[in-house]
Amino acid sequence: MLIFVAHLYNYSMPKISVKALDMPSSPIRKLVPFAEAAKKKGTKIYHLNIGQPDIETPESFLNAVKTADVKVLEYSHSAGNESYRKKLCGYYQSYNINIDSSEVIITCGGSEAIEIAMMTCFNEGDEVIIPEPFYANYNGFSMAAGVKVVPVRSYIESGFALPAISDFEKVITPKTKGIMICNPGNPTGYLYTKAELEALRDLVKKYDLFLLSDEVYREFCYDGKEYISVMHLNGIENNVVLLDSISKRYSACGARIGAMISKNKEVMAAAMKFAQARLSPPSYGQIGAEGALDTPKEYFEGVKTEYIARRDYLIQELNKIDGVFCPKPSGAFYCIARLPIDNSDKFCQWLLEEFVFEGQTVMMAPATGFYSTPGAGTDEVRLAYVLNREDLKNAVICLKEALKVYPGKKA
Amino acid sequence: MLIFVAHLYNYSMPKISVKALDMPSSPIRKLVPFAEAAKKKGTKIYHLNIGQPDIETPESFLNAVKTADVKVLEYSHSAGNESYRKKLCGYYQSYNINIDSSEVIITCGGSEAIEIAMMTCFNEGDEVIIPEPFYANYNGFSMAAGVKVVPVRSYIESGFALPAISDFEKVITPKTKGIMICNPGNPTGYLYTKAELEALRDLVKKYDLFLLSDEVYREFCYDGKEYISVMHLNGIENNVVLLDSISKRYSACGARIGAMISKNKEVMAAAMKFAQARLSPPSYGQIGAEGALDTPKEYFEGVKTEYIARRDYLIQELNKIDGVFCPKPSGAFYCIARLPIDNSDKFCQWLLEEFVFEGQTVMMAPATGFYSTPGAGTDEVRLAYVLNREDLKNAVICLKEALKVYPGKKA
Repeated sequence: MLIFVAHLYNYSMPKISVKALDMPSSPIRKLVPFAEAAKKKGTKIYHLNIGQPDIETPESFLNAVKTADVKVLEYSHSAGNESYRKKLCGYYQSYNINIDSSEVIITCGGSEAIEIAMMTCFNEGDEVIIPEPFYANYNGFSMAAGVKVVPVRSYIESGFALPAISDFEKVITPKTKGIMICNPGNPTGYLYTKAELEALRDLVKKYDLFLLSDEVYREFCYDGKEYISVMHLNGIENNVVLLDSISKRYSACGARIGAMISKNKEVMAAAMKFAQARLSPPSYGQIGAEGALDTPKEYFEGVKTEYIARRDYLIQELNKIDGVFCPKPSGAFYCIARLPIDNSDKFCQWLLEEFVFEGQTVMMAPATGFYSTPGAGTDEVRLAYVLNREDLKNAVICLKEALKVYPGKKA
Repeated sequence: MLIFVAHLYNYSMPKISVKALDMPSSPIRKLVPFAEAAKKKGTKIYHLNIGQPDIETPESFLNAVKTADVKVLEYSHSAGNESYRKKLCGYYQSYNINIDSSEVIITCGGSEAIEIAMMTCFNEGDEVIIPEPFYANYNGFSMAAGVKVVPVRSYIESGFALPAISDFEKVITPKTKGIMICNPGNPTGYLYTKAELEALRDLVKKYDLFLLSDEVYREFCYDGKEYISVMHLNGIENNVVLLDSISKRYSACGARIGAMISKNKEVMAAAMKFAQARLSPPSYGQIGAEGALDTPKEYFEGVKTEYIARRDYLIQELNKIDGVFCPKPSGAFYCIARLPIDNSDKFCQWLLEEFVFEGQTVMMAPATGFYSTPGAGTDEVRLAYVLNREDLKNAVICLKEALKVYPGKKA
């Protein structure tokens, strides 16, 4: 019918690209239309589906923007304002990451850091190994760069610890060009140990691979466990690319400020060409981020205390529900729970479309979108504990009630 | 030697991608290190090399940011804030471009609009025809998307009018998937006529091509000449993708706010997947841009009057210099001048490295970077008249003096 109409009016209609057709929808955002429909019906939704913290952005950030003396809102340097980059090195220094400002490119969010790093390091058809489940948008950026994601599976039973090195070696081919990790992990909340990272270092060295590490949750490590950066690993300085963002650190997701960092001069010189093509990162975000470097330690301590309380509450309550299993994460603000359900995509959509308990429901991200292996994660969901405890409590009640009546419930 | 050292210390060093190696440096920004060196020596540089206006950003923009009531700087909708998109449709309406908010995706600058449009419309290896000289970063975005740019040449003698349609047809192959234009043009300042755009429309229809049009300079049309958008062309609604930015409109380059617009639902749905992968456009930029929609007409009239005066002065003075030819542009704030020189890359670098007149020199963009045809533009430079008239006057004096002593001068 469409074709007929097009022909009748002599409308032409060129075809979109294969990449665009194949590009996956965001598993975190694809349920949004169902949520919007539920809201229109008057249902209150508890959003555990997206890593948008409710924590207030620090005053140091907001005031820097408010008081900025801007007359002409100019392009910044393509690598970001030098004053910000220099001060940022001090921040990294506090984590024992020693870099200078020439080793940093400020990006439009962590997203652009991933995008530029992938285009810089990988050719069309190259393979990058990523422990799954992984942050779903790695798929999108890989697709855009023409890179093939090769998953190695981690399991809920071990709390999503690093897969055995032999599992990595099994999938290494002549096309393997890199390994990508997220530490502390989104969506798992897992914090890699020193032994795990050293094993990765040896692997990377042995096969001469790039090691891309997304460490945007470093402020969120709990229970006294040590955060170890790939930048701390000796002997692979030229293999390592650090991907970062201030979105979670300062609860400033809308700033769109991230960073790509490497000691590999060739990588940085090439990345700079991509950075120049898109001109510059957002100016106001940089102004805020520079101001936020003065955020007092107490802010982070307060935030951490809050997240620990939320995590402890959520994990405890989830594990109380019949048939639910949720390992306790040591970092970030996500957990993955196994539920007694047939299909997490169906279940999460059903929660929005058909379920309501006392005028409320809960929105979660089906874990299937975080796995690359077909069929993996069908009985798992990702929850972001970014709500206050009262809301968390209600969200858990909704989930518990929903599991009582969900038609696809499993014994 | 490097290899030896690497081996000695057992440093590994994986190779960067072919794309990254081949990626062109920005012709506008690659001279920056020479300019920095000149500044360190105390030389004053007149920047005619970059389209960074000195015009003040309107109060409506700056105040919206200053007074924004932000507590948590959240992600926005991946397509941009709905309030902004809705209000933005009113802006387009004032140019007789009729769209609704579902036909707009707000992007991180015009750059990201180009990037997403290319990935959406073109496959690896597809060809896109672009009249040259063209905005140099089209090369970078094409490279990133794996698209081949096929130039058709326009000439300084005709003021860079649209090449003959037969020239386009000569280079159309089965791989040709689109045509891309910039109107009013950067770097040429040329404003396409109705007849030219209608000829393009017929061509696009005949071969069923996408027509991508970068119209970020629509506020800058002079001499009463009519601005015609590709969105005004009937019968190719599904072929047209409009690429836009507020950078020049509000002198807000650092906001990083642009837009990708199309009536083609399939294009917009696919583009949305790329937009979701990078989460959202910058929040503060959107807040400012929404505020800026209330900018009074007088602001633009003032700006236009200023640019016309600068243009008239610059073109007149350039054409007074022996051996210099510069057509008078009808739009944007650039012009391309032909100079009596051997090589514009050499000349522009020499101006920064070796030349100084009364403690001053001038920075321009070699036109070679705006051509895709090797050897084209060697005796041309692009000048952006983004300086006040006093500075423009001094810049022209520098250029005139430089041409007297430049070793590569041609008769």
